[in-house]
Amino acid sequence: MPRPPTVPFKDVAVTEARRRRRPRTAGKPVEEILATTLNIPQYMIATEEQAQKIHEVSLRILSEAGIAFYDEVALATLREAGAKVDDDQVVRFDPEMVEAALDLAPPEFDHKSRNSEKTVTYGGNNIVLAPVAGPPYVMDADGGRREGLYADLVNFVKMANATPYLHNQGTEICVTADIPFHERALDINYAHIRWGDKPMMGHYPIGLTARDSVEMARILHGADRVASEHFLMAVINVSSPRRLDDRMLGTIRAYAGANQAVCLTPFILAGAMGPAAILGTVAQANAEVLGALVYAQLVNPGTPCIYGPFLATLDLQSGSPVFGSAESLLAQSLCGQMAKRYDMPFRAAGTYVSSKVTDMQAGYEAVLAMLPSMLTKPNFVLHAAGWLENGLTTGYEKFALDLELCGVLLTLAQGVSWDEEEWALDSLINEVPPGGHHLGTEHTMNRFRTAFHRTPLFDHDSFAQWEADGSKDATTRASSSWKALLERYEDPGLDDAIDAELQEFMDRRRTEIDPAEFQ
Amino acid sequence: MPRPPTVPFKDVAVTEARRRRRPRTAGKPVEEILATTLNIPQYMIATEEQAQKIHEVSLRILSEAGIAFYDEVALATLREAGAKVDDDQVVRFDPEMVEAALDLAPPEFDHKSRNSEKTVTYGGNNIVLAPVAGPPYVMDADGGRREGLYADLVNFVKMANATPYLHNQGTEICVTADIPFHERALDINYAHIRWGDKPMMGHYPIGLTARDSVEMARILHGADRVASEHFLMAVINVSSPRRLDDRMLGTIRAYAGANQAVCLTPFILAGAMGPAAILGTVAQANAEVLGALVYAQLVNPGTPCIYGPFLATLDLQSGSPVFGSAESLLAQSLCGQMAKRYDMPFRAAGTYVSSKVTDMQAGYEAVLAMLPSMLTKPNFVLHAAGWLENGLTTGYEKFALDLELCGVLLTLAQGVSWDEEEWALDSLINEVPPGGHHLGTEHTMNRFRTAFHRTPLFDHDSFAQWEADGSKDATTRASSSWKALLERYEDPGLDDAIDAELQEFMDRRRTEIDPAEFQ
Repeated sequence: MPRPPTVPFKDVAVTEARRRRRPRTAGKPVEEILATTLNIPQYMIATEEQAQKIHEVSLRILSEAGIAFYDEVALATLREAGAKVDDDQVVRFDPEMVEAALDLAPPEFDHKSRNSEKTVTYGGNNIVLAPVAGPPYVMDADGGRREGLYADLVNFVKMANATPYLHNQGTEICVTADIPFHERALDINYAHIRWGDKPMMGHYPIGLTARDSVEMARILHGADRVASEHFLMAVINVSSPRRLDDRMLGTIRAYAGANQAVCLTPFILAGAMGPAAILGTVAQANAEVLGALVYAQLVNPGTPCIYGPFLATLDLQSGSPVFGSAESLLAQSLCGQMAKRYDMPFRAAGTYVSSKVTDMQAGYEAVLAMLPSMLTKPNFVLHAAGWLENGLTTGYEKFALDLELCGVLLTLAQGVSWDEEEWALDSLINEVPPGGHHLGTEHTMNRFRTAFHRTPLFDHDSFAQWEADGSKDATTRASSSWKALLERYEDPGLDDAIDAELQEFMDRRRTEIDPAEFQ
Repeated sequence: MPRPPTVPFKDVAVTEARRRRRPRTAGKPVEEILATTLNIPQYMIATEEQAQKIHEVSLRILSEAGIAFYDEVALATLREAGAKVDDDQVVRFDPEMVEAALDLAPPEFDHKSRNSEKTVTYGGNNIVLAPVAGPPYVMDADGGRREGLYADLVNFVKMANATPYLHNQGTEICVTADIPFHERALDINYAHIRWGDKPMMGHYPIGLTARDSVEMARILHGADRVASEHFLMAVINVSSPRRLDDRMLGTIRAYAGANQAVCLTPFILAGAMGPAAILGTVAQANAEVLGALVYAQLVNPGTPCIYGPFLATLDLQSGSPVFGSAESLLAQSLCGQMAKRYDMPFRAAGTYVSSKVTDMQAGYEAVLAMLPSMLTKPNFVLHAAGWLENGLTTGYEKFALDLELCGVLLTLAQGVSWDEEEWALDSLINEVPPGGHHLGTEHTMNRFRTAFHRTPLFDHDSFAQWEADGSKDATTRASSSWKALLERYEDPGLDDAIDAELQEFMDRRRTEIDPAEFQ
């Protein structure tokens, strides 16, 4: 039987679609990519009854076992508010106290910067991505792994500002080993203020630094605005199990007291700081979030709080932490459901990897951790780009590659458009015959540039073309990509008077701060 | 204030948990990993009304635009059954005909092998993973990319049998370039029969080869059993848009006619073989599945059919196919919902990558494609391991790495256990104090080996340990891993009389088959 001529799609594509040779930069307009809405439904793995059980077990942990607050100021506040405080600094909470705090926490809040167009919102259908925070090392393909320096931090602040895929420029994107420990907050804050104009977090390892961050925000935005709007956000690490130390409590007081936001983050490696079980770990994390929430709301009723547990598992046989394990993803999904139940903004996992280099394992791990996050409908994803080696290294190539991944995940989060034209009914029924193609239809031509999100850093060429281009693997291409991103960066400038005031403040504080405060 | 002593988790883990140094092989018992059940809920992104709309648009496509069947035998059958057939071989279907076919398709069926313990089930909560199918090239870290040979196929059949993470040993895991085209089905089938005892698919590019596959199954299992049970499964590629050619129709006739299973697979690059839109592409794919289903059910009412579209997008500006794009994942999710609605087993995406090598891009892409698949609750995942370069290369290292990924995803698919002991209530409330740890609890000790799934091929060591072990990236480790997997392979043997009968059949067919049949 004669077979009708087939139209090899690739040839057609080359003829009709490849107007320009490999246009690596075109794609959707940046405004569309910047859209920080989540239109997909939240993936729910627990029933209402199961979520209720998690809530009840957490309340039992809070009322029977309690949370330790290693800080007399916090204990006094909690005692005064009616919590039971024992001699070991362990605080037990009645359910009513927890419910009252939940009632006070806003379901949604804005996070602002000096550029009013870059305000982001946490809560509802909004998602905000921020770069990795905290690694002592940096790594790039040219220089390998080395201590992070101030110049690296500035590079990452610039890249976080130059990319459309991050919406919050973060905090200590890498440690600045060339700056004395007690002065780092000043310089980190200054780097973010001077080189960026997206919302920033400040630096907040202890109350003292958090207060300096607030002071610098006041210089930048004015004390009045800082009193009524949110320009900073601190991640409050609960030292699981069930412990808040004076550092983190001091930061809560500094930030919440100044009307700035906090993300309440129990860090649990299940099997070590939590049980070797999903449900027990979730119940503990939930209790820890609620305990910290009570204190934040006592410091300042209405403090914007994010429900932000960081869950991973311990490989019980080797003692290594495992990020993006199946069990931690399931636990995170349950936490997302609890945050929804409490009507609190939710923070979920970024591109966590254990891998030391930007290899295939790093690719697997990054998506394993962050894709399920997107399905929890998170409002905040810290560590969305750059994380290597269990969070001990910020990778330049990893940063560039993760940004491309973020673009894919943000596109996924846009969900399906149900507009009538998405059916392409006329093409399907009248225009394209069996064995024909849709490349030349009016419908396709109308959305030639916008139909599908593009990922220029990912190679989709033929093997021959890829070989002709130098057989470059993803890391090699990413090495060029982050340099190009740095070149695309545009300096937002900074008012001279503000700059001078910041310098004056920093000069004064460098002499005032006692390094012993950080012991 | 004095801070209570903290217990660095890593040190505790080393002391209490690291009984043996880096036990790379231990973990959950294989039986648990082999469990092919999906206990997580299906992720639904459309409402009932939206799914109904997809169904209705598909019915319009089938009744107004139709599907071309380029095969006179099929056209005669369809005409006789009441379908409208026009002069261009385009067949239009009334909704009633579609509904009748849906009523006949079984919601669940078994796929058997010569080892009754390895029977798998498609449908319900069951998931079956199979290796990549069809690449002309193979690649490994030692020899680079080259044509696939029969020895490679045998290697992959052995590895598919040796791993606990694949449940169906597949078909042409790589092309066997050293065997004449018209004889390949014989040798591919023989390789699967001789070296494997998991369910196999047979080889089925045209009706003639599919019939030989059935004959060889009859020699192996007996004609009676093949008549009443399912030992083979063919993937039927619809040549989208809306076209089934004589090759695929011949295969449907050979397999369905012999009571073997078919997976109905429109292959659509949205923007080329389907509209540049998610909804239009899904409506077309759904119509194509239903059109093929009608024919399969006419050939043999009750034929086990899998709903199995393969959706990707075309980069409209470069002409390259993009697998695992956000848009194709959303489209797949909608298809999963349609399969559920029709109560048909569903086939979803495997570890598709465009990358030419096992680099970070390949890692990203593999999880981007396959993790969302798991959330559609698929019953069958072809190409779950080994796929490189848009399906043109079977990678040895990719195969090993993907297997480790499959283990993680199968663990994820197990969902959360809500057994009472998962709460670890006694540890949480009574045993572990604030700042303590769960490593030494009875609860943890009881599940020391089984609590969390292990991934020995993924590195979770410290940087120093990783460096001391040779700074091996994932590809380097995978090169050892697949060789170790091959060594672990155990020959299931084959009855001499059956072997002799198979050899006799193959010898005869080698002289009978006319290579011109494949033109």
